[in-house]
Amino acid sequence: MASPGIVANCRKVVCIGRNYADHIKELNNVRPKKPFFFLKPPSSILEPGQGPVLRPKGVNLHYEVELALIMGRQVQDLPEDDSQGALDSIAGYAVSIDMTARDVQEEAKKKGIPWTAAKGFDTFLPISNYIPKSAIPDPHNLELWLTVNGKDRQRDSTSLMLFRIPRVLSEISRVMKLEEGDVVLTGTPKGVGKVEVGDVMRAGAMVGGEEIEGARIEVG
Amino acid sequence: MASPGIVANCRKVVCIGRNYADHIKELNNVRPKKPFFFLKPPSSILEPGQGPVLRPKGVNLHYEVELALIMGRQVQDLPEDDSQGALDSIAGYAVSIDMTARDVQEEAKKKGIPWTAAKGFDTFLPISNYIPKSAIPDPHNLELWLTVNGKDRQRDSTSLMLFRIPRVLSEISRVMKLEEGDVVLTGTPKGVGKVEVGDVMRAGAMVGGEEIEGARIEVG
Ligand SMILES: [Mg+2]
Ligand SMILES: [Mg+2]
Ligand SMILES: [Mg+2]
Repeated sequence: MASPGIVANCRKVVCIGRNYADHIKELNNVRPKKPFFFLKPPSSILEPGQGPVLRPKGVNLHYEVELALIMGRQVQDLPEDDSQGALDSIAGYAVSIDMTARDVQEEAKKKGIPWTAAKGFDTFLPISNYIPKSAIPDPHNLELWLTVNGKDRQRDSTSLMLFRIPRVLSEISRVMKLEEGDVVLTGTPKGVGKVEVGDVMRAGAMVGGEEIEGARIEVG
Repeated sequence: MASPGIVANCRKVVCIGRNYADHIKELNNVRPKKPFFFLKPPSSILEPGQGPVLRPKGVNLHYEVELALIMGRQVQDLPEDDSQGALDSIAGYAVSIDMTARDVQEEAKKKGIPWTAAKGFDTFLPISNYIPKSAIPDPHNLELWLTVNGKDRQRDSTSLMLFRIPRVLSEISRVMKLEEGDVVLTGTPKGVGKVEVGDVMRAGAMVGGEEIEGARIEVG
């Protein structure tokens, strides 16, 4: 089954940067005092079965597995301490891979210009099927994993998020309202790295030692 | 008449930075060798009559008047020299104000982090009514203007664009496909500056010495 409506209903994809301490270290980045975020265009979403991630010529292409939140209603100026309101505003989840042209991003960082191109190529957001909320009782207690050609590359718990989901949704919604169908990426744990043409990425999520079947991504 | 469908049909707003030489100078920026771009979320669009631009607390809020293109069809990998293809892909135009939290943007530039918050607050994209293509025979020969409290602040011809529309659409579409309803902002001429609470911005466009009536913006 294709993800029902994730792309069709999505008007923006908001992504948190640097939300896991060990990932910040591996890229020699500075730990942020508050969450910061960027946008990927909805046109970058790659649904299950839509086939390979494009490798723009000469680009150092990195994977970043992330928990995606699919918003269920409008959220504006959410108070930071409204954990229940934050969780209630989420309609469901997905596993996603925030593909990143790392060299393009590094150049943008040096020049102080936007990350948009580095993050926004077509196919740069492989996403799983829609995961119903009931399958993830606690989004802060989920094991995310990603393999390349069968080798483990990322495997960590969402409990390691520096800024938890209510804080993330609060920060975003105090700048830009979130709308039904918007997608929020919550950051990647350590282990990011390069993929070459022909590599196969698989990703997924586990709850209490069990795979969530609908959470699988397999993409060339 | 409200802009028919500009917001409703918009999935992304792609904005070109630094596309007029005198504006680059006034902000002490480096002239880019090729166009770069960033995204504003559709949720930042403020249609005619939707009332004032919000001033986030403590922010140095700047206006930037720009010609907006409303895309009429999907564009992917447009060749740089396909001027006719570029113009044919445009359904219509609008005048827009790319509101910018200048201090937030300067901090982001220094830190090498995204411009998203600086550009993406709710109400940060006042837009005019939809301007039919027939009203603008040549988008590179249009006078854009903006006043604050009745005083001229920006008034320049789109003939001054460093990268003309076909080049801009080519660069964007080689990264991310443009889709019907997407909005492209083509950069701001010189004269950007601060607005305070209570200031009234007016903006518009002239062709051959005549105002385009549907192009007017008036916003507090
Ligand atoms: Mg990421
Ligand atoms: Mg967007
Ligand atoms: Mg601008």
